[in-house]
Amino acid sequence: MRVLGIDPGLRLTGFACVTFETAHPNARVSLNDAGVVRLDDKTDIPARLCVLSRELGDLIEHNTPELACVEALFTHYQNPRTAIVMAHARGVILHELAKRGVPIRELPPALVKKSIAGSGRATKEAVQRAVMIELRLPPIPTPSAVADALAIATVGGRRALADTLMADRGTL
Amino acid sequence: MRVLGIDPGLRLTGFACVTFETAHPNARVSLNDAGVVRLDDKTDIPARLCVLSRELGDLIEHNTPELACVEALFTHYQNPRTAIVMAHARGVILHELAKRGVPIRELPPALVKKSIAGSGRATKEAVQRAVMIELRLPPIPTPSAVADALAIATVGGRRALADTLMADRGTL
Repeated sequence: MRVLGIDPGLRLTGFACVTFETAHPNARVSLNDAGVVRLDDKTDIPARLCVLSRELGDLIEHNTPELACVEALFTHYQNPRTAIVMAHARGVILHELAKRGVPIRELPPALVKKSIAGSGRATKEAVQRAVMIELRLPPIPTPSAVADALAIATVGGRRALADTLMADRGTL
Repeated sequence: MRVLGIDPGLRLTGFACVTFETAHPNARVSLNDAGVVRLDDKTDIPARLCVLSRELGDLIEHNTPELACVEALFTHYQNPRTAIVMAHARGVILHELAKRGVPIRELPPALVKKSIAGSGRATKEAVQRAVMIELRLPPIPTPSAVADALAIATVGGRRALADTLMADRGTL
């Protein structure tokens, strides 16, 4: 199963596409593609949304994910300005995914951190290290938006496979 | 000049297209088209964003506005949840406008209310009445998202014409 993880932002959107080698939730995961869409913060928001939409559209078509995972909504109440700006990017991203029929799974950041790095309050560095180990990457993934996207894809994919397994066993 | 006003939302997006009969900021304004894009709140946000994108795209192509006016950002700190949800719709709307090259003007809601109804704290009913008078409409525009879109288009258009006039006079 190919899973695209996305960490949305209007300066930097991190993305990562990983493949689960089997349908088991503990399957080995490999990295296909990862990076950032970097938006010029000297241009206005509508112009940045155009670039994001185009680049993300290309990424989806290149990677043909079977599932996309993004950070859940309403987790940035402490900083409404950041959350509101991010939601513009998130709106465009969800639209690009939905119009191509890619199923979307939303994950609270604390759950992603806990699953990958053992604590819902793990630091950025701890998430980067955990992702490096999980995906057998020689360098630490940077910037942290890439590590976050890798973490979201890995955790979201495992949870989707676990749900399918449980449903197949009739325990869901 | 044809101006499209938009009041973004993920349940209801109000829109209104008005025409200024001359290039003077006090020009008579006429209504071309107004209504709402109503989104099914039983469907998920990505599905709603797809409908909004498609319907707004059609509206832009049908009305060919020379300017679009939307509510400015960061005015809903009191209610972050509403602002974050609205920003998803706003992201998709700004993208639909920008990718078609429509210039965008952002206006703080208090400025729109003050300009059209005399007070930055005007009630929804006061805005509806003011818009009805300004555009010589027999019925009061409802729901209030339509009145808000009419108010944004009218005030934004007048301000754009005033800016052009001042720039032509070399006073800007």
